[in-house]
Amino acid sequence: MTPPTRVAVIGATGYAGATAATLLWRHPCVQLRVLTSRSYAGRNFREVVPGDGPDLVLQDGPDPGDAEVVVVALPHGMAASLAGSWVKEGRTVIDLGADFRLRDAVEYRRWYGAEHASPGLLGSAVFGLPELGGEQLGGATLVACPGCYSTAAIISLFPAARAGLGSRDYIVDAASGVSGAGRSLALGSHFAEVAEDYRAYAVDGHRHLPEIVQALGEPAARITFVPHLVPMVRGILATTYFNLEGRHIEEVRAIYAAAYEGLTFVRLASSPPHTKEVAGTNMCLVHVAAQGDRAVVVTALDNLLKGASGQAVQALNLVMGWPEATGLEGLARWP
Amino acid sequence: MTPPTRVAVIGATGYAGATAATLLWRHPCVQLRVLTSRSYAGRNFREVVPGDGPDLVLQDGPDPGDAEVVVVALPHGMAASLAGSWVKEGRTVIDLGADFRLRDAVEYRRWYGAEHASPGLLGSAVFGLPELGGEQLGGATLVACPGCYSTAAIISLFPAARAGLGSRDYIVDAASGVSGAGRSLALGSHFAEVAEDYRAYAVDGHRHLPEIVQALGEPAARITFVPHLVPMVRGILATTYFNLEGRHIEEVRAIYAAAYEGLTFVRLASSPPHTKEVAGTNMCLVHVAAQGDRAVVVTALDNLLKGASGQAVQALNLVMGWPEATGLEGLARWP
Amino acid sequence: MTPPTRVAVIGATGYAGATAATLLWRHPCVQLRVLTSRSYAGRNFREVVPGDGPDLVLQDGPDPGDAEVVVVALPHGMAASLAGSWVKEGRTVIDLGADFRLRDAVEYRRWYGAEHASPGLLGSAVFGLPELGGEQLGGATLVACPGCYSTAAIISLFPAARAGLGSRDYIVDAASGVSGAGRSLALGSHFAEVAEDYRAYAVDGHRHLPEIVQALGEPAARITFVPHLVPMVRGILATTYFNLEGRHIEEVRAIYAAAYEGLTFVRLASSPPHTKEVAGTNMCLVHVAAQGDRAVVVTALDNLLKGASGQAVQALNLVMGWPEATGLEGLARWP
Amino acid sequence: MTPPTRVAVIGATGYAGATAATLLWRHPCVQLRVLTSRSYAGRNFREVVPGDGPDLVLQDGPDPGDAEVVVVALPHGMAASLAGSWVKEGRTVIDLGADFRLRDAVEYRRWYGAEHASPGLLGSAVFGLPELGGEQLGGATLVACPGCYSTAAIISLFPAARAGLGSRDYIVDAASGVSGAGRSLALGSHFAEVAEDYRAYAVDGHRHLPEIVQALGEPAARITFVPHLVPMVRGILATTYFNLEGRHIEEVRAIYAAAYEGLTFVRLASSPPHTKEVAGTNMCLVHVAAQGDRAVVVTALDNLLKGASGQAVQALNLVMGWPEATGLEGLARWP
Repeated sequence: MTPPTRVAVIGATGYAGATAATLLWRHPCVQLRVLTSRSYAGRNFREVVPGDGPDLVLQDGPDPGDAEVVVVALPHGMAASLAGSWVKEGRTVIDLGADFRLRDAVEYRRWYGAEHASPGLLGSAVFGLPELGGEQLGGATLVACPGCYSTAAIISLFPAARAGLGSRDYIVDAASGVSGAGRSLALGSHFAEVAEDYRAYAVDGHRHLPEIVQALGEPAARITFVPHLVPMVRGILATTYFNLEGRHIEEVRAIYAAAYEGLTFVRLASSPPHTKEVAGTNMCLVHVAAQGDRAVVVTALDNLLKGASGQAVQALNLVMGWPEATGLEGLARWP
Repeated sequence: MTPPTRVAVIGATGYAGATAATLLWRHPCVQLRVLTSRSYAGRNFREVVPGDGPDLVLQDGPDPGDAEVVVVALPHGMAASLAGSWVKEGRTVIDLGADFRLRDAVEYRRWYGAEHASPGLLGSAVFGLPELGGEQLGGATLVACPGCYSTAAIISLFPAARAGLGSRDYIVDAASGVSGAGRSLALGSHFAEVAEDYRAYAVDGHRHLPEIVQALGEPAARITFVPHLVPMVRGILATTYFNLEGRHIEEVRAIYAAAYEGLTFVRLASSPPHTKEVAGTNMCLVHVAAQGDRAVVVTALDNLLKGASGQAVQALNLVMGWPEATGLEGLARWP
Repeated sequence: MTPPTRVAVIGATGYAGATAATLLWRHPCVQLRVLTSRSYAGRNFREVVPGDGPDLVLQDGPDPGDAEVVVVALPHGMAASLAGSWVKEGRTVIDLGADFRLRDAVEYRRWYGAEHASPGLLGSAVFGLPELGGEQLGGATLVACPGCYSTAAIISLFPAARAGLGSRDYIVDAASGVSGAGRSLALGSHFAEVAEDYRAYAVDGHRHLPEIVQALGEPAARITFVPHLVPMVRGILATTYFNLEGRHIEEVRAIYAAAYEGLTFVRLASSPPHTKEVAGTNMCLVHVAAQGDRAVVVTALDNLLKGASGQAVQALNLVMGWPEATGLEGLARWP
Repeated sequence: MTPPTRVAVIGATGYAGATAATLLWRHPCVQLRVLTSRSYAGRNFREVVPGDGPDLVLQDGPDPGDAEVVVVALPHGMAASLAGSWVKEGRTVIDLGADFRLRDAVEYRRWYGAEHASPGLLGSAVFGLPELGGEQLGGATLVACPGCYSTAAIISLFPAARAGLGSRDYIVDAASGVSGAGRSLALGSHFAEVAEDYRAYAVDGHRHLPEIVQALGEPAARITFVPHLVPMVRGILATTYFNLEGRHIEEVRAIYAAAYEGLTFVRLASSPPHTKEVAGTNMCLVHVAAQGDRAVVVTALDNLLKGASGQAVQALNLVMGWPEATGLEGLARWP
C-alpha cells in the first residue's frame, strides 16, 4: 500500500482554507501534517472552525514542515512571494488564491494594484480547472485554482467559446452567497446590512474577468461580467447570455453535451439549477435554454467547494494520479 | 374641505392587497370603506395581517359597496369579469393584477392560457406607470398597474429605448424577493426550500415580458428577460445590459438624467443600489454604468410598493389630481 | 463478508424520510431496496430531492418488498396500522414518527386526538434514544425514535433527573429551525411570513411533552416545555433551567460528565453551543452553566439528524450490532 | 403656534442613533439641528444610512450646537462624561446608552468594568420606560432609556412583580435579532457565521440583568435572564416563566390587564406574538398563558424602536408634554 501523501494547508482558518483542511483531513490518500493561521496560531483547529475537521493545533508562520504538497489559501499577494521556494524545494503547490492565475504580470498589476513578487513563476503555473485541460495537471508542481465566479463563468462559456457561438460575445450575470467575501470583517458582510438585501457590485469590471478571458483562450472574446451578492451563505449562480445567431437551441445543447462528456463534476440539468442543489458538493449543474433567439445558460455550484477548495482537491487528485472524485463524495444534504 | 374619497380594496389579504389597504387606511384623502377577502371574510383585517393596518371587518363577495374607487388585487382572470360593471357604475377601477395590462386579447390568451372575459375594455385601460405617460392618468376610469418586474424593467429601459440606445436590444436580468410570489402556498415559497437558495426561473420567457415590450412602445425592441428568486422577503433588482455602440457612458447618463427629470419616485444613484435601500418605500433607484463598451443599468425597488401597491396609490393620486406622493412618504427604516 | 442488510424507507420524500434514505444509501452495511412516496411515486428520488441521494425510483404503496428493516417516516397515525404486520413478518421496524413513542394508549389519544390502531404493540416498542438505554436496542424488532425536541430535552435533562437535581422541576425553552415543521405546505412555513420572524408556539403544552416525561422515567417530574420557531432551516437549541438548591455548578458538571461518559454522539462543550456547529452532523453538544443559584443547560443538535434520521440510523446500528457511528461521520461543513 | 424644539443626535450613524434621527426628522414638534458621527463626519446622513432620513451633514465632535434636547446614542462610558455639562447648560438629555440606567456606581463598575465618570448624576436620572413611572418624565432633564432586552423583560414582569406573583422568582428566556449587536464589526455579526445559526450567550449573567431588577423595584426578586441570538435583523421576544402557586391563569391575566390599562404602546395579545408583528413599530405585544401550574408570558417588540429609539421618542414626548404617540405611528409593514 502506498503511504499517504503529506499535505500542509497555509491559511487554514478562512472559509476556503478551512474547507480545504476539512476535506483533506477526510481524504483517504492524504496525511494532513500542518495547518497554519496567523489569527489563531496555538489553538486547535476545531476550536476555531466548528465541526469534525482536523484535530490539529494551528501553527503560526507559513512553514509547511515536511509536507510534500502545500495548499495555499492566503490573501492575494502573499502566495506570490512564498511559492517559489516551496516549488524549488520540490514540493507541489496548490494555490487557491489569485497570485498565479494570470499569466501576464502587467495584467496582474492592473487588477491587483501591485507588482507581482515572482513574475518568473507565472508561466509555469497550471490553471487548476480540471474541466479545461485537466490532462496538464498530472505531475504539475504549481497549480493556480480559479476563483469561484471564474469557475462558474468558464464552465458556462467554454463550450460556446470553443464553438464560436454568439460570435464570442457573452454576458455573465452572476450572484454569490456571502461566504464568497471571506471571513474578514466588513460592513458588506455585516448581518444586519446583508440580510434582506440584494445588490450588484463591481459593475465597471471585476478581478475575475481577466482570468475568465484568459481561460477561454479567446483574446477576442468580449465578456461582460457583473457579480451580485445574495443573502445566503453558500452558492454561486451564473446566468449567461449570448445570441443564437440562427442556431437551434438543440444544436447548442448538443455542443454543450459533447463538451461536458466524461466530466465527473459537471452535469447538464433539465431545468434551471438551484444553488441549494449543489450546496455542500463539488458538483456543477448547467442548464442550457433559449429565450427567443438568445441562449440562456444557467450554472450553479458551491463557491467554497467546486468554486474553491473542492476544486483544489479535485486538482490535487489529478496531479497525484488519484481518482478524480477521491474525498469529494457523499457530502450533500437537503434541505 | 373636500370630503374624502370612498375606496374599496377587493382581495385585501394577499400581500399586494394588504399593502394597498394599509397605505389607503393612512391616506389623508381617502376613506377606506370596504375590504374583501374570500379566505378570511368575517374577521378583522388586523387579525389576519399584523401591524397597524385597517381596523375593518373583511367582507366576503367582491362587492365594493358605496366606494367611488375600487382597488383590485385578485388572481389574474378575476378582475376581467368584474371590472366592467364597476366602470359602468361610474367607479374608478385600479387593477393591480394582470388582466388589463395587455392591449391585445390574443397576447393575453397566449401568456395566460385563457380567453379574456372583457376584451372590449382592453383598449380603454390606462397603463398605471406614472413615470411613463402619467398625464393620461388624470381622470382615468380603468387603470392597469404593471407588475413588479415590469416596473423595474420599464424604468430601467425606457430612456434607452426612446433614444434608440443599444439598437433597442436589451437583456434584463432581474431578481425578486419571495413575497413577489404572493401569499398562496407553494413548495417554491416553502421556507426550508427557499432559504439559502438562489435560482433562475422562467428562462424561456415570463409573462411580464409582453407588457414590458408594449410599454416601451417599440415593437421592434428585442428584450430578453430572466427572473431569479432571492431568499429575502422584499425587493427587486434589475440588472440591464445593452451595447454602447460607440457612445460614451456620460452621454448615456445624460439621456437617463433627462428622462427622469422631475420624477418624484425615480432617482439616479451614484453607486449600484441595494434593494434594502428602497425596501418599505415607493422609491426607485437607478445606477447607470459601463463595463467596456456595454452599458449596465441597475435598478432597485420594493416589489410590494413601487412594484405594486405603492405604485397603485401613486397612480390613484394622479387620477384624482392629488399630489403624487400623498400617503407614500416617511415609510423607510434601516437596517 | 456479511451480505448487506436490505432496508426500505416508507415515506422517503419528506425531510426526515429523505434524510434517512440518503444516509442509508451511503451506509456501508445497508442495501437500500425500496423507497416509497405517495406524492412522487414513479419518479426517481433524485428528481424530487436534490443532491446525491439514492438513485432509485419511488414506489407508491407502503410495501417494503423484501426489506429486512423498514424505516418509517409517515405522518402520525399511519405507522400504527402498518407496523404490526411488518413485525409479524419478522422485519425490524424503525419508526421516526410518533406512533409508538408513548407506552400508554390513553396518553396517545389525549395528545393525538385519535385511537391508537395497534395499542397491543405499544408495550413492545423500544425507545430509540441510544443514549438512554441503548443496550435494549440490540435485536429490537420495533423501535420508536423520539422527536427532535424530545431528543434535545431528554439529553439536556436525564443526568439531572436521575440525580434528582432541582427537585426534578425543569423548564425547557427550545427553538427549532423551520425544517422541523416538515415539507407539507403551511402559512407557518411560508417564506415571507417566517423570514425575519421569531415566535413561541404551543405555550399551553406540546405533544413532545409526554414522551419527555416518560423517557426521564420520573412521573413526578414537572416539566414546562415551550418551543419557538427560528428563521433558519436546520437546528434545535434547548435552554434548560433548574434550581441548584445549594449545589455548586462544578458538582452539577461532574454529574453531567459522568452521565455522558462513553457516549459517541453527546459531548460537553466549554461554551454555549451554536446550532450551526452541529448542523449536518449527528452530534449533540451540551453546555452546563449557572446563573446565580440556577443551572442553565444549553443543548444543540441538528433536528433532521440527531433529532430524527441520524438518530434512527444510530439506533439501527445498535439493533444490528454494527459500530454505533457507522454511516454517520464526516458530514460537517462550515460555514 | 409653538416653535419646534431644537434637537441634536450625538452618535447618529449606529443603528439606534440612526433610527432616532430618522424618527425625529419626521417628528412634527421637532426641528433636527445637529447630527454627529465620528466615523462619517462630513458626509450627508443619507449617504451613510439608506432611506429617507435626515438630509443633514454629519458633524464630527459631540457638540449639540443650539439644541435644547440632546439625544445620545454612544458606546457606554461616553455619555457619562458628556451629559453633565449639557444638563448644566439647561439642555434635556435623553440617553439611549447604559451610562445612567443604574442608580448605583458600584453596580455600574461591576457590570461595565470601569468607574463611572459622573456618579453624582446617577441619582437624578429618570428611567425612560414610560410604562413604568411615565409621570416622572414630565420636565425631566436627564432620561436614561432602558436597553432592548430590559424593556421586554420589565414589561413582561412588572405586573407580576408588583402583585408578588410566583414569589417574585422569574426566568426570562429572551432572543434578539442581530441588529441588537449594533453596527460595529464583529465575527458574531458576520453574515456567514450568523445566518442559519441560533445560540445562547451570556448564560452566566448579562449586563441588562441589574437594570431589570432595579426597575422592578423588588431587590428580593430573583431573576434569571438568558439572551439568544436569532438570524434576523430586528425584533426581541421574551418568554418569561413563573409559578402560578395555585392561582388561576385568568386571575393572572386580569392582573396583567389592569397593569397595562391605558398604556399606549403595550397591548395584550390573544395568541403568542410574532416579532414580525411589531417590527417597524413602537408597539409591545404580550401574551399571558399557562402550562400546567406555570405561567408563560411571551412579549414581543422591535429592539430598535420600542427597545431603543422609538422608546426614546416616546419618553421625549412625555418630557415635553406632547401626545405620547407623536411621530411614532403608521410605520408598520407586512410581510
